[in-house]
Amino acid sequence: MNDDLFAAAEVIGIVAFAVSGGYAAVRAGMDWLGVVVLAVVVAVGGGTLRDLMLGIEPVWWVSAPGMLIVAAVTSLVVIAVAARHPQSKVDSWRIVLYADAVGLAAFTVTGASIALAEDVRPWVAIVFGVITGTGGGVIRDVLVRRKPQVLVGEIYALASIAGAALYVILLETTVPSGAAALSAAALVLVVRAGAMRWHWHLPRFPEPHA
Amino acid sequence: MNDDLFAAAEVIGIVAFAVSGGYAAVRAGMDWLGVVVLAVVVAVGGGTLRDLMLGIEPVWWVSAPGMLIVAAVTSLVVIAVAARHPQSKVDSWRIVLYADAVGLAAFTVTGASIALAEDVRPWVAIVFGVITGTGGGVIRDVLVRRKPQVLVGEIYALASIAGAALYVILLETTVPSGAAALSAAALVLVVRAGAMRWHWHLPRFPEPHA
Amino acid sequence: MNDDLFAAAEVIGIVAFAVSGGYAAVRAGMDWLGVVVLAVVVAVGGGTLRDLMLGIEPVWWVSAPGMLIVAAVTSLVVIAVAARHPQSKVDSWRIVLYADAVGLAAFTVTGASIALAEDVRPWVAIVFGVITGTGGGVIRDVLVRRKPQVLVGEIYALASIAGAALYVILLETTVPSGAAALSAAALVLVVRAGAMRWHWHLPRFPEPHA
Repeated sequence: MNDDLFAAAEVIGIVAFAVSGGYAAVRAGMDWLGVVVLAVVVAVGGGTLRDLMLGIEPVWWVSAPGMLIVAAVTSLVVIAVAARHPQSKVDSWRIVLYADAVGLAAFTVTGASIALAEDVRPWVAIVFGVITGTGGGVIRDVLVRRKPQVLVGEIYALASIAGAALYVILLETTVPSGAAALSAAALVLVVRAGAMRWHWHLPRFPEPHA
Repeated sequence: MNDDLFAAAEVIGIVAFAVSGGYAAVRAGMDWLGVVVLAVVVAVGGGTLRDLMLGIEPVWWVSAPGMLIVAAVTSLVVIAVAARHPQSKVDSWRIVLYADAVGLAAFTVTGASIALAEDVRPWVAIVFGVITGTGGGVIRDVLVRRKPQVLVGEIYALASIAGAALYVILLETTVPSGAAALSAAALVLVVRAGAMRWHWHLPRFPEPHA
Repeated sequence: MNDDLFAAAEVIGIVAFAVSGGYAAVRAGMDWLGVVVLAVVVAVGGGTLRDLMLGIEPVWWVSAPGMLIVAAVTSLVVIAVAARHPQSKVDSWRIVLYADAVGLAAFTVTGASIALAEDVRPWVAIVFGVITGTGGGVIRDVLVRRKPQVLVGEIYALASIAGAALYVILLETTVPSGAAALSAAALVLVVRAGAMRWHWHLPRFPEPHA
């Protein structure tokens, strides 16, 4: 994956997760600054967890702080839109889920790519793809006190695992790395979007009685 | 900021957040050791997050473990007081909020100061001031399962941002660093205390129906 | 503690906490992959927190990823058992608590041991024993939205503190390190199992009214 493609994936992931985090804050009844804070935390959270565990320090956004601004500006758009459409929450929910899927796709691939550059074993890079792709959402769900989507969602972690695995496998072939990255991201998106559209899900244990 | 002032700010922040964390544990119905554990975790949590993200390792309290003892002893005082005044919870609540504000002020400034010493850009140091000042409280709220104060509170994150920004700006002037630190901490305190006193708050999105 | 004993303690701890994390996911109504994810996260979580704070990087499982597989395979057993005995939850609960106690014992000792190898002060190694022993359970409880056991449990943190302290103290004597490790782990288990059996607990503050 060349540098331009990588940078584009990073920006796309940041914007997508800032939307996801910002809307989660709106729905949870946070104040405007809370929306900005949660958007930024969700946007940079997965990559931060990845860097901490890989030992990349300081974590990535300290040397690329422009990404914090991208996330914050995105959250201002979320605020502006949400403040005007108070009743549109149900509608906007689908948009947010798709934004979240885009972020999942982008960060799964960038996360696996960065882990490989740190010389971890290929299958461990899959784990880091999943950590990077899902980490921000886990932090979001904990902070707004929802069940973590990665543990109960419709083919959420599985989409990330599939994409990261495809990426790692394609890199072992003669497929160019850019094509591998795009294919992997597309797989995440297709699997996740299909799961949302047709309500695919893994077998679940029954909900506890509260 | 000279070493004595810095050390004083650290101790003040530790004691203040140990009070905040300890009382949160009391109110959540924890056992006595749980109060000690939560007090210590909240007291050192913000600085720990800061050090992890900056790549300062081991984290600060490993080489200054006396601070763990300061936090633990503070929590014993909290236990002693709380065990004697079982009905005084509502009253004590205000005290705890003010202790929390003091901790926020102290750690916002020490956090920004440490980040600057690691050569991050000035405005990124503001982010680290906020992480250090608010991180312990976020951990506290997650562990006692409350809505994170930083996302919904009366001018909470904003007080920290304002103080950290003032500190960073004053350091660019001829103001002595100690005076900059004290001014910044005072600003955090005044803004936060004023917000509590007069219920200032940012625009909020409506609470979701449970 | 020689390498074989240490490795055995690690595997025991991983399996034990994978059982604890996996069953917690089953009880919380997660899907099958969610059970695997939570089992792995809980199994490696305490050691990951320890390594991050000590500055051991990348964190331990990156260079020993086989442990992720041990945890994942354990979670598959949990799924197979749980899927067949849907009504046995209450019964299985005790088994899970004992598995958790075994994990607490194993990781308390390995955590203290690793911290000592990093030249932290002996009493700070006790703190790292507790972080390693209890960290995975804290992450588990946050993700399934339960009250953290370490803050309210029947002599939970205290068992870990006692074991870690015994380990550190015995290492100062002529007792062989293997015997020190086994004694310390046994102390954790006995204290924790006794607390569960006879409902020992520390004084508690009253539960808040919801």
